[in-house]
Amino acid sequence: MPLPPPTQMVLRDGYCEFDFGQPDPDLLPTSELRQAAAAALDTFGPDMLAYGAPEGAWPLLAWIQERVHQREGIAVGLDECVGTAGNSDAIDQVCTLFTQPGDVALVESPTYHLGLKILRDHRLDLRAVPVDADGLRVDALEDTLLQLEREGRKARLLYTIPTFHNPTGVNLAMDRRRAVVDLAARHGFLVLEDDVYRELSYDDVPPPSLFSLAPRGTVMRMGSFAKALAPGLRLGWLNCSAEQARRFADGGLRDSGGAPNFTAAMMVASLCRSGDFDTHVARLRAAYRERREALAAALTRHLPDGCAFITPGGGYFIWVTLPAGVDADAVLRSAEARRVTFIPGSRVCIDGGGDNFLRLAFSLMKPDQLEEGARRLGTAIADVAVTQL
Amino acid sequence: MPLPPPTQMVLRDGYCEFDFGQPDPDLLPTSELRQAAAAALDTFGPDMLAYGAPEGAWPLLAWIQERVHQREGIAVGLDECVGTAGNSDAIDQVCTLFTQPGDVALVESPTYHLGLKILRDHRLDLRAVPVDADGLRVDALEDTLLQLEREGRKARLLYTIPTFHNPTGVNLAMDRRRAVVDLAARHGFLVLEDDVYRELSYDDVPPPSLFSLAPRGTVMRMGSFAKALAPGLRLGWLNCSAEQARRFADGGLRDSGGAPNFTAAMMVASLCRSGDFDTHVARLRAAYRERREALAAALTRHLPDGCAFITPGGGYFIWVTLPAGVDADAVLRSAEARRVTFIPGSRVCIDGGGDNFLRLAFSLMKPDQLEEGARRLGTAIADVAVTQL
Repeated sequence: MPLPPPTQMVLRDGYCEFDFGQPDPDLLPTSELRQAAAAALDTFGPDMLAYGAPEGAWPLLAWIQERVHQREGIAVGLDECVGTAGNSDAIDQVCTLFTQPGDVALVESPTYHLGLKILRDHRLDLRAVPVDADGLRVDALEDTLLQLEREGRKARLLYTIPTFHNPTGVNLAMDRRRAVVDLAARHGFLVLEDDVYRELSYDDVPPPSLFSLAPRGTVMRMGSFAKALAPGLRLGWLNCSAEQARRFADGGLRDSGGAPNFTAAMMVASLCRSGDFDTHVARLRAAYRERREALAAALTRHLPDGCAFITPGGGYFIWVTLPAGVDADAVLRSAEARRVTFIPGSRVCIDGGGDNFLRLAFSLMKPDQLEEGARRLGTAIADVAVTQL
Repeated sequence: MPLPPPTQMVLRDGYCEFDFGQPDPDLLPTSELRQAAAAALDTFGPDMLAYGAPEGAWPLLAWIQERVHQREGIAVGLDECVGTAGNSDAIDQVCTLFTQPGDVALVESPTYHLGLKILRDHRLDLRAVPVDADGLRVDALEDTLLQLEREGRKARLLYTIPTFHNPTGVNLAMDRRRAVVDLAARHGFLVLEDDVYRELSYDDVPPPSLFSLAPRGTVMRMGSFAKALAPGLRLGWLNCSAEQARRFADGGLRDSGGAPNFTAAMMVASLCRSGDFDTHVARLRAAYRERREALAAALTRHLPDGCAFITPGGGYFIWVTLPAGVDADAVLRSAEARRVTFIPGSRVCIDGGGDNFLRLAFSLMKPDQLEEGARRLGTAIADVAVTQL
């Protein structure tokens, strides 16, 4: 019997699949990893096959510390860096070590919907805070905090993607960044900042992280190699306070198993320190910038009147607003028939909204496929608009 | 500033360190991994850098399925195999997905003490069940279940190491294996079988796993590459019911991040399928068998009267009973001065016992070091015995 496909993503022939927020396989660093595996074994020998230090692979954490300093201009202690097996693992472990079932977790709506599943597996009580073109709506966040106070409850954490937001692509405005950090410090909730797209900026320098603006202990910032290198590596890191970092290192999982995914982390340490990371990220930026522009131009050409979108400055996604009254789930049915797919807004919202929106990933397809996909999508929307309006 | 050591284990010059349950770095498969990394990239290409299927790396799971069949003579469905990032990760995720804080977890005493830390991070209520020369005492397990019934409570899971137990080295007797499985089915608790040492058998075929004796759904068996290959890889697997496997694959962590540690898993799939795993394990068995014999012989020579131990049929450890009244913590202080270390029994027991025992790992040191360590240990025990008795 043949095995199921090894990858999570299974593409269908002839389809334009805007739904997968995944890198183009042609942009994955296979030859760099081959060299890194050999180089790491030369450099570290059997050490990289032993249990790693519970904080993470130090050679990789030291590189991350340097890069954060170089790219963001902030000084982070080595004891404020923790290795993770990617942001999904980081969310999972933050829940295990810093929350209890029933705790309130504030989340953006729309947001990265699969992150929410992890919070739900830990039985957190999710409360939605809406997002607009300037990111998380701080007025709504304040309302939610007041509402919780009236219920005699407190928020335990806020899960947020302030930079190149998934799915909207927008950045949280600077004044809102400061306001979120202030509210967190004042109300005593932890901000879990998902900063997975920071390396994939196509125009300007990305805005400062919430972590860089906050007193230590208020924000845990999750970085990842999933988008900038390869998701299958399952490698990321956290920046947090030294005390929070200690809680990770002293936890049972790392005390028993050592560094998460240690052997792969040492390979990636070699890859990063060789300079290949920089070259690779520059290549990704150029490729995805071109794709963002191709998709934006194609959408401008092909979407019917009444549609709108904001061209994002980084990340993987364009968030499309449909004409009033046009339902994204209906469009998806029509789109499927035309062999084009996307994620309807309702799937990434938890406040009952999102019917009027859809998420398009431009990471996976090449410019000509993006053009063809936009053409099919435009027709699918127009078809539904005629029926629904 | 120099970085901290990359590995969890930091050895001290001139010490005989019996405390680390870790493989000898000289026995780690560096050249095999180098070949496997290259071969896997040839075979799988960028697929192995993408998000892996949430169940785990299929080529590795298929190899595991075959090996379980070949070595244990049992048929396990591919849908009854789940990839993990090692047994620590497996314990952690079983807690997240199958328990709630406050649930009762039955654990052996003594046991693998770092596994307990993971259960505690999930706020489980641990209850100790003693172990004797035939493994977990089923009479005591029954008493504990009755006691729980009187409290109006139920056990949620039993964490157990029935084969080449850590730290005692003993195997759970066959009749007890059947009894544990019967009790689990009858009382509705889940058996979490830690089967990490199965490949490291030095005499006979290891006893059948609890998983193989139980109706599906009763036992989750955790296997690992940590001892048979390399701990830094952070790779293992679970055998469980198809329904339980589905709970893993459908959980937020895997839905978001895909297969745990996917790239490394695909490398190990190549390594295993090349035949290198068999060759490597045969080499480990020969080396550790020699070490077990060297330590057992040295202990017989050097331990003072009143000490006792059972020579284990597999695994990493010899569990030493001290002369009555001699305290292992006092011996450790005397041993440290003689530059020999071990884990005192109190650290691996949760029932207040263990004062009279110590755990020696024979995996790390070569036969001449084991001999020297046993000599020093014998003197340290004799010194304390003179004072304490």
